[in-house]
Amino acid sequence: MKKIVTIGGGTGSFTVLSGLKHIPDITLTALVSMADDGGSTGSLRDELGVLPAGDVRQCLVALSEHSDIVRKLMSYRFHEGSLTGHNFGNIFLAALEKVSGDFVHGVQIASEILKVKGTVIPVTSNKADLVVALNNNCFLIGENELNHADFQMTGIKMMSFKQEVTLNDHARKAILEADYIVLGPGNYYCSLVPCLIVDGFKEVLHESKAKVIFPVNLTNKHGHTMGWKASDYIKDIEGYLGRAVDVVLINNEAPSDEQVEVYKLEEGDGVLVEDDYRGDNALRAPLLSHALIQKLEGDAIHALRSFIRHDSTKIADAIKSYIS
Amino acid sequence: MKKIVTIGGGTGSFTVLSGLKHIPDITLTALVSMADDGGSTGSLRDELGVLPAGDVRQCLVALSEHSDIVRKLMSYRFHEGSLTGHNFGNIFLAALEKVSGDFVHGVQIASEILKVKGTVIPVTSNKADLVVALNNNCFLIGENELNHADFQMTGIKMMSFKQEVTLNDHARKAILEADYIVLGPGNYYCSLVPCLIVDGFKEVLHESKAKVIFPVNLTNKHGHTMGWKASDYIKDIEGYLGRAVDVVLINNEAPSDEQVEVYKLEEGDGVLVEDDYRGDNALRAPLLSHALIQKLEGDAIHALRSFIRHDSTKIADAIKSYIS
Repeated sequence: MKKIVTIGGGTGSFTVLSGLKHIPDITLTALVSMADDGGSTGSLRDELGVLPAGDVRQCLVALSEHSDIVRKLMSYRFHEGSLTGHNFGNIFLAALEKVSGDFVHGVQIASEILKVKGTVIPVTSNKADLVVALNNNCFLIGENELNHADFQMTGIKMMSFKQEVTLNDHARKAILEADYIVLGPGNYYCSLVPCLIVDGFKEVLHESKAKVIFPVNLTNKHGHTMGWKASDYIKDIEGYLGRAVDVVLINNEAPSDEQVEVYKLEEGDGVLVEDDYRGDNALRAPLLSHALIQKLEGDAIHALRSFIRHDSTKIADAIKSYIS
Repeated sequence: MKKIVTIGGGTGSFTVLSGLKHIPDITLTALVSMADDGGSTGSLRDELGVLPAGDVRQCLVALSEHSDIVRKLMSYRFHEGSLTGHNFGNIFLAALEKVSGDFVHGVQIASEILKVKGTVIPVTSNKADLVVALNNNCFLIGENELNHADFQMTGIKMMSFKQEVTLNDHARKAILEADYIVLGPGNYYCSLVPCLIVDGFKEVLHESKAKVIFPVNLTNKHGHTMGWKASDYIKDIEGYLGRAVDVVLINNEAPSDEQVEVYKLEEGDGVLVEDDYRGDNALRAPLLSHALIQKLEGDAIHALRSFIRHDSTKIADAIKSYIS
């Protein structure tokens, strides 16, 4: 029984967990970022003083073996009245934290209710407000601000938290016992890096015998990583890890004609990250989802890039071929 | 396997179901009033256009065999932010109605999630706004207004609904197949009578072979039934049913000294309904709960009477002795 730990949050973790859960004879643990402070998650966090639920919720849904309707319930967003904008799953996790007195315990109870295959663990039990110091001596406060900021010209001096944020003991144990650790995929600075900078993470990873798998981002993010090539992501993440990754997964598939048409991608648009990596630890495979994702009202034009996503089966197959 | 159906809502149904669920070799079905329009239930009903969840929620919790913490979760009320005053269980049922597209189906899914022993069925699938015509040609609109109104001097001419409100097919089937039907206990005009006036109820009850059990109210309600004796309740309910009840359960126990002291009851206070009934279908037993219920801020003085409640074990034992 091989032990796989994923690290991250958001849609990326949802995708990789949705694929990995079909691999037989593995145990899955999702370590989840606790830095989210936007949207429904952010307002519950502000109003109720609870830990951010959104990323945890997505991981729970990915691993839930309950009926489709219960999984749909967890993602339901209210559109009317005083609950407008709130996601039911976030309210559920907030109430569980209130009732159980502890977010991590609440997540355990949620896992039982939702018949989760595997374990979902918040990377930290502390309140974790991101603080990003830029090279111009300005700061970005919070993940939501970071997500929407254009800091690429200025550059990041340091990324940290307002508070002391330490690795959760359950997370520590999972990393130490892991055979494989999958970093992301997902929003590089907003979902992945906030997990890596938690106090104790680097040290525990150093102690762990796990092989580290890094699926390189498919697209670059406006204002964050524009122009980055595969080698830039690998070099940058190895800086945060303080060690080399064992294998990088690189997509070698182009968007479909339909995606090009629907998303109005232009040839040479540079939507996909350029593969310039020459290391011998690369595993190249078609990893792209060809599902068309509905554009929501208000999505900015550069948000189109987030419509280019990993396919859960393809990424799971690539990981499976490596670990077999 | 004897089939018992309870009819009502609120704390009364919660109490009797909590007791009955421990009786072996019976199947339990709770038919629940859909007229509630106050509090958290009422605001969700107004804002989201969903059916009222509060009474159903209490029945689900009574019959849930899930862990204590999950039952506690269902009753959790938010105290901060935009969710203030909302009950988690009500939000849960509202979201399930939205996701499943149907309240009755949503209640079925909730029952699975909560490991409910038995079945909880809304008495109707229709929106049901109570309309009470008084003898002075004035009207009370909605259960919440009825609950707080003093209409005893004027008297009720007719109690009905704004819309066509018909018996749910599942409810019809349950009544037809029942061996015993327990009416209430609970708020007489606000929880019990609104079930009995649903279109089709009287006719289906007439067809049913079930024995009807009526636990007479313990106390009279200010503005509604002050001064009523046991025989008044029995006569009144038989009017709504269009038939006699088979057995009446009458409490023969006084409040404890502690209750008298804490609730400041005075001798001859007339808190308990006077037992003047002479019919030979009365089953008298000690039915009073001696648990002290915390007075909440804002409770009116006459609300003290609702602190005198049935004991779930005692009322279940009385019913058991009748059906054995």
